[in-house]
Amino acid sequence: MIALDELNCCGKDAFVAALGDLFEHSPWVAEAAFGQRPFASLAALHAATVGIVRAAPAGPRLALIKAHPDLAGKAARAGQMTADSVAEQGSAGLDRLSAAELAEFHRRNDAYRAKFGFPFVICVRRHGKESILRAYQRRLTHDTATEVEAALAEIARITALRLDQRVEAADRLKVHGRLSTHVLDNHAGRPAAGVAIELYELDAGGERLIVRAVTNADGRTDQPLIGGRPVPIARYELRFQVGAYFAGRRIDLADPPFLDVVPLRFAVAEPEEHYHVPLLVTPWSYATYRGS
Amino acid sequence: MIALDELNCCGKDAFVAALGDLFEHSPWVAEAAFGQRPFASLAALHAATVGIVRAAPAGPRLALIKAHPDLAGKAARAGQMTADSVAEQGSAGLDRLSAAELAEFHRRNDAYRAKFGFPFVICVRRHGKESILRAYQRRLTHDTATEVEAALAEIARITALRLDQRVEAADRLKVHGRLSTHVLDNHAGRPAAGVAIELYELDAGGERLIVRAVTNADGRTDQPLIGGRPVPIARYELRFQVGAYFAGRRIDLADPPFLDVVPLRFAVAEPEEHYHVPLLVTPWSYATYRGS
Amino acid sequence: MIALDELNCCGKDAFVAALGDLFEHSPWVAEAAFGQRPFASLAALHAATVGIVRAAPAGPRLALIKAHPDLAGKAARAGQMTADSVAEQGSAGLDRLSAAELAEFHRRNDAYRAKFGFPFVICVRRHGKESILRAYQRRLTHDTATEVEAALAEIARITALRLDQRVEAADRLKVHGRLSTHVLDNHAGRPAAGVAIELYELDAGGERLIVRAVTNADGRTDQPLIGGRPVPIARYELRFQVGAYFAGRRIDLADPPFLDVVPLRFAVAEPEEHYHVPLLVTPWSYATYRGS
Amino acid sequence: MIALDELNCCGKDAFVAALGDLFEHSPWVAEAAFGQRPFASLAALHAATVGIVRAAPAGPRLALIKAHPDLAGKAARAGQMTADSVAEQGSAGLDRLSAAELAEFHRRNDAYRAKFGFPFVICVRRHGKESILRAYQRRLTHDTATEVEAALAEIARITALRLDQRVEAADRLKVHGRLSTHVLDNHAGRPAAGVAIELYELDAGGERLIVRAVTNADGRTDQPLIGGRPVPIARYELRFQVGAYFAGRRIDLADPPFLDVVPLRFAVAEPEEHYHVPLLVTPWSYATYRGS
Repeated sequence: MIALDELNCCGKDAFVAALGDLFEHSPWVAEAAFGQRPFASLAALHAATVGIVRAAPAGPRLALIKAHPDLAGKAARAGQMTADSVAEQGSAGLDRLSAAELAEFHRRNDAYRAKFGFPFVICVRRHGKESILRAYQRRLTHDTATEVEAALAEIARITALRLDQRVEAADRLKVHGRLSTHVLDNHAGRPAAGVAIELYELDAGGERLIVRAVTNADGRTDQPLIGGRPVPIARYELRFQVGAYFAGRRIDLADPPFLDVVPLRFAVAEPEEHYHVPLLVTPWSYATYRGS
Repeated sequence: MIALDELNCCGKDAFVAALGDLFEHSPWVAEAAFGQRPFASLAALHAATVGIVRAAPAGPRLALIKAHPDLAGKAARAGQMTADSVAEQGSAGLDRLSAAELAEFHRRNDAYRAKFGFPFVICVRRHGKESILRAYQRRLTHDTATEVEAALAEIARITALRLDQRVEAADRLKVHGRLSTHVLDNHAGRPAAGVAIELYELDAGGERLIVRAVTNADGRTDQPLIGGRPVPIARYELRFQVGAYFAGRRIDLADPPFLDVVPLRFAVAEPEEHYHVPLLVTPWSYATYRGS
Repeated sequence: MIALDELNCCGKDAFVAALGDLFEHSPWVAEAAFGQRPFASLAALHAATVGIVRAAPAGPRLALIKAHPDLAGKAARAGQMTADSVAEQGSAGLDRLSAAELAEFHRRNDAYRAKFGFPFVICVRRHGKESILRAYQRRLTHDTATEVEAALAEIARITALRLDQRVEAADRLKVHGRLSTHVLDNHAGRPAAGVAIELYELDAGGERLIVRAVTNADGRTDQPLIGGRPVPIARYELRFQVGAYFAGRRIDLADPPFLDVVPLRFAVAEPEEHYHVPLLVTPWSYATYRGS
Repeated sequence: MIALDELNCCGKDAFVAALGDLFEHSPWVAEAAFGQRPFASLAALHAATVGIVRAAPAGPRLALIKAHPDLAGKAARAGQMTADSVAEQGSAGLDRLSAAELAEFHRRNDAYRAKFGFPFVICVRRHGKESILRAYQRRLTHDTATEVEAALAEIARITALRLDQRVEAADRLKVHGRLSTHVLDNHAGRPAAGVAIELYELDAGGERLIVRAVTNADGRTDQPLIGGRPVPIARYELRFQVGAYFAGRRIDLADPPFLDVVPLRFAVAEPEEHYHVPLLVTPWSYATYRGS
């Protein structure tokens, strides 16, 4: 991490060394930003870089878009992507695709490139696999001008996340969301402590375990289930081991118990928001809702 | 179906023709029951046959137990089971076991037979596969006297269900349970009509579709999801297509919608009871409970 | 009660004797209806009488409206109302008004009559006191033509209810609603039996006990809380003695218990509909909703 | 407020000036506590004073109990109570009793004093009026030794609250509870902002408004409804103006709306705990529970 203060007073070489790769293979953005110092906030720095891209002639702007690698493409397999792109594509599981999924991505990449002449750019940290595939489908119906705009908007999101990870400042960019839960035992009238929880991401191909946790004395998890990053647009299932919890309370349950593993299935559509998905539960009932 | 009145006044041959196979390969029970006519009710007829077995010497009682086929055993594969047993074992899916499951059943049959000297008898219509496997495990820990009692109790349940299917009478035996649901749209304050529902039975090996249904104008299904029979002791998942339902109401939903397919997972422990498992739902919340 | 069949074949005198007072002080409607016999259904009979009024010249129609007594008016105090009107006004509590309320009704009657030249006609069985006062306010803003229509529509409702009480037929008019409840004990997973319930009608002046009931084994009341009549448009409060219920189940409660008397407060807007207002309850939580 | 550090190093006169009236009319406790300085924490100071009373001979201990004024007694009317007692009795509304209530308190004071020979001592800040009356009833059945213990335990609670208000220290005594709420709009899937709320304390004689509040953007109140003090043991009713809230959201409601003012009625039994009583609401349903 580098401090915003330092970026505001260092030499040009150091500035470009720090932010030259903020925009994929396009150090010229950082070079131009150097001339606009000082930046009063991280938000101002981000806005300045986005403004530089917007103000650039069509040629360099298109070149910037074209500098992005295909999703799950040859560059990834050949080890030729930037470190940022490697981490970003990995976060959505694009480095672990099945052969069929890989073929599907290539088909869509090719179709997109064939229509628009540049690669499909998307801020993958904001998406699950399924959501990326839906985005291809939706965006493939656009015209080129719309897609140039869409690509630049995605690049703004990508660089906001990169800045968030690299630069220390008093302000933070609004790039993180949060997924949390809370288990209330309405049978005992208190938080349910010690409930084992699993969070899965669901897609057409099955499910992927995201995190395991156990509720604390307040019925919450010590850490948010997803936090410090965007919550990927995706379908999820939370599973709560309430049968084991109530058995541990020595409550007289049916055999097998009416409720054992309780699944809550929901989707996230706004990665920068807080999704609170609590469980109100007795051995014979449960409820959930989008809370806050 | 034969009427109880007719059983009460027909000749012995006709009586034994009608009920000789009520107890597996044991027409002597029906023969003895003939002498106790008339029966005031179906319950009285059933109680009489059970009493005859209870009063019989140990030899014939043991022979009756031994006359039952193994679950998923050689008799089934050789086509040597009674028609009743074929239908009963099929109802729990024992005629569709995988090779691994078949091996598991044979191992347990052998262990049970080795310990007690007679086959494992259970009223399979009251159970799912998983529940039968748990019953083996539990009953294998008993002593022989307990298991003779257990087998006779199961035979009483088996014959009650057979009588229920064969004999018309003013009274009915308490052998049926019911599984029903009801979808309330708490967003609109009315029953949710046209919601597609699927009911699955879950077991370690996966899931099996039991029934599909669509809610009617009152938010219920025209027929109970399971009815006119015991509700097998098993784990179930109900899935409600609430995303499609709310989209059909032209409500402004998130993309993807917060709730799309809502799963309710629960278990049945008392096959002769009514399990009412309703869904109270909005685009952002849901609740369920064991109702009535 | 007189049978529709009998009305269809009796002489004119008997017909007019039976239905002459259906329309307030206006036997000419029944006399005209006699000529349209036979009526295939109660609905047809009602439609015929309403049609006769609609087809009548303005003079008799206005006379019919004027033949109605003021609400809580002099006719009531002087014992000069028809038996039907006495019962109807009593059903909304108009025979038990405080002096202040009486003055309020008289003020509104006078204002209405001053503007339109005829009395305020409303089907009082469909209303609580507060709802009637709101109706005065709303209707006083109308023009005369609108109010003549409104009065005739109310007369159609009044006469539908009178026919419903007097004539037996295979069909029934849709003039009844229903208010029911159901108490589910989500702590035990079964209906809550033996819960004492009170239903109050609320208005600005306070509350009026409508009915007391106790839940049966299914958690319901043997009779609907309101049934066999329109459910008056009004605000209600249901009160459930859940503290006593859970104490009776020997559950370890806080002292005083977190929940003791649970009030559910709601309003009815559609008197001919079914309002099902259940209570899902544990010692620490409760929920309600408009059910079906 | 005086700092614990200062109490630990000041002279005896200053120490007794600060804490001499901690125990009602009994400066000897503070005098003895002076000798045990320094106190590592507020908890240690409180424990020391309680220990001094416990270790004192029966005479002074009884004198301490007797030094307490009657609840709603002559001392109050004559203006002879300590400032602490005036504030404490006022907090439970004992300075605003009706004539009938006053007579009731005097009857109970007299009965208690007649049996035990000393006044009824209770930490009134932890109670509502009704709860105090129940305590008389319960404690009047005890023997004298039990009541001496009960009075000393109440004095420990009274002095803990007095210390909490007077002494600044790094630690705090566990003498505060909290009552909070949260309104979730399950129709929109977000917190309900701008909902007007009233909190009433209920007793046999009626209700007393405790506080009015309006929910903020997170559906909560900026301040807890009760906080920074014990939550009095009492029955409460929260009233939420949900009809106005949903009307403000331009939702198409029934007329009158099914839900308008939603009352939640509950009781507090543990004054030092957190009572979170949320409302999950749509125009057609609501739920509450003891949360955390």
